[in-house]
Amino acid sequence: MLAGAEHTTGYTHTCKTLLEKSQAKLVNFTNMVISLGKDDPRRVIHSFKVGLALILISILQYFRPSFYAFGDNIMWAVLTVVLVLEFSVGATLGKGLNRVLATGLAGAFGVSIRRIASFSGDKGKAVLTSMFVFFIAGTVTFMRFSPRLKASYDYGLIIFILTFCLVSLSDNTENELLEVAQERLLTIIIGSCIAIVVSICICPVWIGQDLHNQIAGNIQKLADFLEGFGDEYFNNLGNTEEAAGDNKPFFHRYESVLSSKGSEETMAVLARWEPCHGGFRFHHPWKQYLKVGNQIRLCAYKIKALSVFLLRSEQTPYELRNRIQEPCTNISMESGMALKESLLILKHMTKSSMPNPHVANAKNAAESLKSVLRTNPWEGADHLEIIPAATVASLLIDIVICVENICEAVDELATLANFVPSELLHRGTVQPISNSDGLVHVISVAE
Amino acid sequence: MLAGAEHTTGYTHTCKTLLEKSQAKLVNFTNMVISLGKDDPRRVIHSFKVGLALILISILQYFRPSFYAFGDNIMWAVLTVVLVLEFSVGATLGKGLNRVLATGLAGAFGVSIRRIASFSGDKGKAVLTSMFVFFIAGTVTFMRFSPRLKASYDYGLIIFILTFCLVSLSDNTENELLEVAQERLLTIIIGSCIAIVVSICICPVWIGQDLHNQIAGNIQKLADFLEGFGDEYFNNLGNTEEAAGDNKPFFHRYESVLSSKGSEETMAVLARWEPCHGGFRFHHPWKQYLKVGNQIRLCAYKIKALSVFLLRSEQTPYELRNRIQEPCTNISMESGMALKESLLILKHMTKSSMPNPHVANAKNAAESLKSVLRTNPWEGADHLEIIPAATVASLLIDIVICVENICEAVDELATLANFVPSELLHRGTVQPISNSDGLVHVISVAE
Repeated sequence: MLAGAEHTTGYTHTCKTLLEKSQAKLVNFTNMVISLGKDDPRRVIHSFKVGLALILISILQYFRPSFYAFGDNIMWAVLTVVLVLEFSVGATLGKGLNRVLATGLAGAFGVSIRRIASFSGDKGKAVLTSMFVFFIAGTVTFMRFSPRLKASYDYGLIIFILTFCLVSLSDNTENELLEVAQERLLTIIIGSCIAIVVSICICPVWIGQDLHNQIAGNIQKLADFLEGFGDEYFNNLGNTEEAAGDNKPFFHRYESVLSSKGSEETMAVLARWEPCHGGFRFHHPWKQYLKVGNQIRLCAYKIKALSVFLLRSEQTPYELRNRIQEPCTNISMESGMALKESLLILKHMTKSSMPNPHVANAKNAAESLKSVLRTNPWEGADHLEIIPAATVASLLIDIVICVENICEAVDELATLANFVPSELLHRGTVQPISNSDGLVHVISVAE
Repeated sequence: MLAGAEHTTGYTHTCKTLLEKSQAKLVNFTNMVISLGKDDPRRVIHSFKVGLALILISILQYFRPSFYAFGDNIMWAVLTVVLVLEFSVGATLGKGLNRVLATGLAGAFGVSIRRIASFSGDKGKAVLTSMFVFFIAGTVTFMRFSPRLKASYDYGLIIFILTFCLVSLSDNTENELLEVAQERLLTIIIGSCIAIVVSICICPVWIGQDLHNQIAGNIQKLADFLEGFGDEYFNNLGNTEEAAGDNKPFFHRYESVLSSKGSEETMAVLARWEPCHGGFRFHHPWKQYLKVGNQIRLCAYKIKALSVFLLRSEQTPYELRNRIQEPCTNISMESGMALKESLLILKHMTKSSMPNPHVANAKNAAESLKSVLRTNPWEGADHLEIIPAATVASLLIDIVICVENICEAVDELATLANFVPSELLHRGTVQPISNSDGLVHVISVAE
């Protein structure tokens, strides 16, 4: 009896812990889902879009137009929609076009190979087909290693191998095969079209816009760091906690820039598939974004080296730091402002005919830092104490060059992408002229 | 007549230029193919493997065992082989297991959903099925955004959506469906098995080994730079050409380390699928490789900042550089040697019980650099001239810390991965002992 009661208690206890555990897991899972959705609400919309595209396919099946009359071919439309409908328009278009073209080409190619092989008897045909499959599949697989082909046509190459093998190895008669192949191609075209239409028409995610925003965001992160650095380093009186900049998240945000190369390259490749949208043309200079991105990263490496000294500002006594404070603070502030000026070009997609004034200011500040250094401001001080401050000065002078390169790359982008000259936008209002006939003409150009 | 001749000449000319152009393109293409194969001959082998796996499938089809008796199902084996057989064993295993499990699960799930939907009449069934497809496909698509699921199970999630939709939307009767589903699952299992067997048995490419080699290669690149830096910077007498280090490619090789994060993460995820091979167990600490990789990158950022000064060594007169030459050269040389010592741990997969002597030497050299600096070696010199040299000194002191971190991370890896203690390997020969019976025992352990 007692043993039974114990058993029951143990059982209840196990149940309870299991319940608690699964409850905790559920809470964790819910939190994860909520944060995924909050980070980028477009993810939720994309999930809806996939569901919707599949419903469209199933509706097509229920209404069964003539080309749907044969049982299993809906499969190819479902396959196509699930595989082709990607998060961004660029990826969807790239995959859709790759799929349709590769299927068509490989189908035609496979049919020809079958015809060639059929000249050599039943057994010869089997051997010849296998040889062709081996050779063609091997060659195309090898071509997939070429970085240039891989970037834009990897999916097409896989589909080519797939379709070619299916057509060559199928044991239908040629007439059956031609019919099936035609119908499948049609189904795949329908699937791709549904995927592309859903992708473009319902809250489209333009990967080109994302790349544009990411580059702008990275510039912003560097600018925030630089604008904050001077004050933080020079006004720190030895309070380590504040020196670390831990209470100021913008001192760490730039770190994501260091490893952004891969994602930028992927985005630039996908963006090339996208048609004209917003301020972006079909042949928008996406490659220039990669150049800007590289310059941003070169600056971020320098900032990484600089950031160490935020933690160590107390190694140099305040009085010694003080002697180069003004030009250094000017450099970091003006560099940050120069970047923000470039940021405006990207944000408004306008081209400025005036050179960036803050770049010139930053260069002047660098020159005045150099002339302060020429006066040997730390004469007699302990070299071990002045070295951290000297390193900060040296890195800041380097950063001015990096910032100038970023601004030049952005200007080049504005020229290549034919951004609208900003004068046309900001000087849009023409003074009214009072004519003798009393009519007043006001010409204004909307901003 | 004349016009005709001209026309012919023009035609011949066009033909010639076309021929020349296509010849040039062919040469380019051939060169590209040769260099692709030379860069990594395993690519050629992989292409053979894909061809071979497809031939195996086609042989299976010609012999037609019982489960192949139904026309189109070979398609699923071809699909599986083409999509699952990847360059590395890890990727192939991951995709194969994902595909089989997801197909099985989604098939079972789809059949249950159909049974539930069939309770509600013909029209109700259509509506209910569509709703389920919308809801399930949307949810799984959303789950694909979770970074943790995406890393290992992305392919499985796609296949789940695909199979679930195919089963739910198919218009076969339930009995037909069950039969077809069983047979397809079997075909997919056969396809996956062929892909996995071919991948493992013929010149396998272990992605874990590749990750191991890449990390070791990155350490080598940093070590080469550091060992060469001291000499290059301090012995340069103003000859800019040599200062750039352009004639010494190892001053630029480390640059690939800066953007290696993405590829390392992908490799670590794939390596987890791989079974025991070479010195690697199934639960090899792949995550620790990422930690080592991060430490290597932190060091590379510093080296990036340092490399600028190779170009500018003439900014500081030789006599001024000379005053810190010894400790600085020692730091960079010992840091390089410390990294090479760590490299040996990775290369031989042995664990050293002795602390890395070069790390201690590098730290001592850093201390002696600091004491040289305390003597104010540049007293009276122009601050603008000493600042580049001071920055080099400061960066070198920082690099010692980075190098120590790398060595510690590698030691931790050696412990986690149970590398063999090196004493067992290197002290393998036991002195022969002359016994009274005149027999000589020589025990030696092969290195």
